[in-house]
Amino acid sequence: MAFSFIPREIKFFDLFDEQAKKIVQAAQLFLKIVVENRFNDVTVREMSDLEHDCDDLTHDIIDKLNRTFITPFDREDIHNIAQEMDNVVDLIYSITKRMNLYNLKSNDDMLQFARLIEESAGNVAGAIRCMRHSKMKDEMMKYCIEVNRLENAGDQLRDFVLAKLFKKTKDPIKVIKWKDVYTDAETVLDQCEDVVNIIESVMVKQG
Amino acid sequence: MAFSFIPREIKFFDLFDEQAKKIVQAAQLFLKIVVENRFNDVTVREMSDLEHDCDDLTHDIIDKLNRTFITPFDREDIHNIAQEMDNVVDLIYSITKRMNLYNLKSNDDMLQFARLIEESAGNVAGAIRCMRHSKMKDEMMKYCIEVNRLENAGDQLRDFVLAKLFKKTKDPIKVIKWKDVYTDAETVLDQCEDVVNIIESVMVKQG
Amino acid sequence: MAFSFIPREIKFFDLFDEQAKKIVQAAQLFLKIVVENRFNDVTVREMSDLEHDCDDLTHDIIDKLNRTFITPFDREDIHNIAQEMDNVVDLIYSITKRMNLYNLKSNDDMLQFARLIEESAGNVAGAIRCMRHSKMKDEMMKYCIEVNRLENAGDQLRDFVLAKLFKKTKDPIKVIKWKDVYTDAETVLDQCEDVVNIIESVMVKQG
Repeated sequence: MAFSFIPREIKFFDLFDEQAKKIVQAAQLFLKIVVENRFNDVTVREMSDLEHDCDDLTHDIIDKLNRTFITPFDREDIHNIAQEMDNVVDLIYSITKRMNLYNLKSNDDMLQFARLIEESAGNVAGAIRCMRHSKMKDEMMKYCIEVNRLENAGDQLRDFVLAKLFKKTKDPIKVIKWKDVYTDAETVLDQCEDVVNIIESVMVKQG
Repeated sequence: MAFSFIPREIKFFDLFDEQAKKIVQAAQLFLKIVVENRFNDVTVREMSDLEHDCDDLTHDIIDKLNRTFITPFDREDIHNIAQEMDNVVDLIYSITKRMNLYNLKSNDDMLQFARLIEESAGNVAGAIRCMRHSKMKDEMMKYCIEVNRLENAGDQLRDFVLAKLFKKTKDPIKVIKWKDVYTDAETVLDQCEDVVNIIESVMVKQG
Repeated sequence: MAFSFIPREIKFFDLFDEQAKKIVQAAQLFLKIVVENRFNDVTVREMSDLEHDCDDLTHDIIDKLNRTFITPFDREDIHNIAQEMDNVVDLIYSITKRMNLYNLKSNDDMLQFARLIEESAGNVAGAIRCMRHSKMKDEMMKYCIEVNRLENAGDQLRDFVLAKLFKKTKDPIKVIKWKDVYTDAETVLDQCEDVVNIIESVMVKQG
């Protein structure tokens, strides 16, 4: 009876796992769309649905957080992990929408970004999964290191494709469009790194 | 006599209301400039004055916050509300300056953005006004929901005008300029949403 | 013997001084590269080394922060100062890389930005150096005011060079490239201001 006003057993880890699943689904869907070169209203709609689901999860986490007194770790960190994971799906959706809006076709460079993003998303989900078990700290670190590696790879890929874009593309409108989507694609990898950076600092604080 | 070193009765709600007034004034001025197609040094100066006033208010709030031990709600939230409201006015000023700098004339698309911004600013001010009265929670939620709706409308408007811009404008320099100001105009609506998101979370925390 | 699990005497001020030194070195190197018009793989590599060093310092500070219970001032502020100083060096590196990638030559406008950045970096380092001595508050404020002044100067410079760029440059590809690096150059000055803004608020909190 007592303390019924404190929602007990808020399962933040379960909610994080669900959010991570949305990141993986968005990354896999994006890769599929790039491989099949199918940027159209139907696929944008599919991605939009995923984005909405992830949005709802994020609001749910932040709402539960605001109503909860006892949390498994720092409130600020829970808030930021939820927010950063949401940003990942938001940006994948935004790129998908823009590829369609700009009438861009898949190419090898975007395919490489899509593969890096899909790989990074899987590793973010792995790191999130390990958070609840202190015994899985070593495994978790492997996922984090991998996300860092993929961010570096994305950095180099972006420099390479932008240099190529400016050298080979004569049509400035095309340059504007592609510069936009390549830059955003690299930012997705930055955002994945943001998530694992917070996870790592949570681990350090817990000693 | 006692405790005179603690500044009592710091009226954060009053200061927020003043800041919200600046947002409304900036949004109204922007709409007026767009309607009258008067982007010039005089109107940029007018907007710059408003931006300075809002800047002073923001510094005042953060300064008072740093000197105060007792606050009506979380320090972090007070800081963020002040900062986010300041960002709104900063960006409206920046768009005004850029329209003048780029020699752009008002058009129907920018008029639509200006209307959304003016409407959103009014609702932000409404939500801020309700914060101090716990009885006005329902009214406050209506303002917040409206700001969210206007952000969605802005999102769709930006997608629509960017698609049109890339389809119809042959001059790439014009594309660069307009893409810049449309993107910023949509971001103003995002920033208004950021303000009410914090307000909502403050309300949830207070139960 | 007791409390050996609490790392004592974590010298955050020393680490901040080291980080500030990296900002100054990066700004000086950038100015030198602009003056000598030497944007090439060798100078990008030099800047990349500096960026790595600063990255290591930042990780070191955040790691120590996460393991420390007693800090000379708010944890959040320590975290943010480290992060913001890191951002400064990151962006100077990014501009250097981009000048090379885009095949851009030094010009008078970039030289002016480089001078503002070098001056601002020196003042950031000055403000950081004064933080540990409460007696040096007045001197510290002079450095902060100077960083604010340089940010305003950068703002005006950016408006001026962008207006000129759009008026005089016919090649849209060139416009895209220069707009990118000028905008980033101005943002470096914003980031320097971010650092001293946090320093100022730390001072206010300490009364």
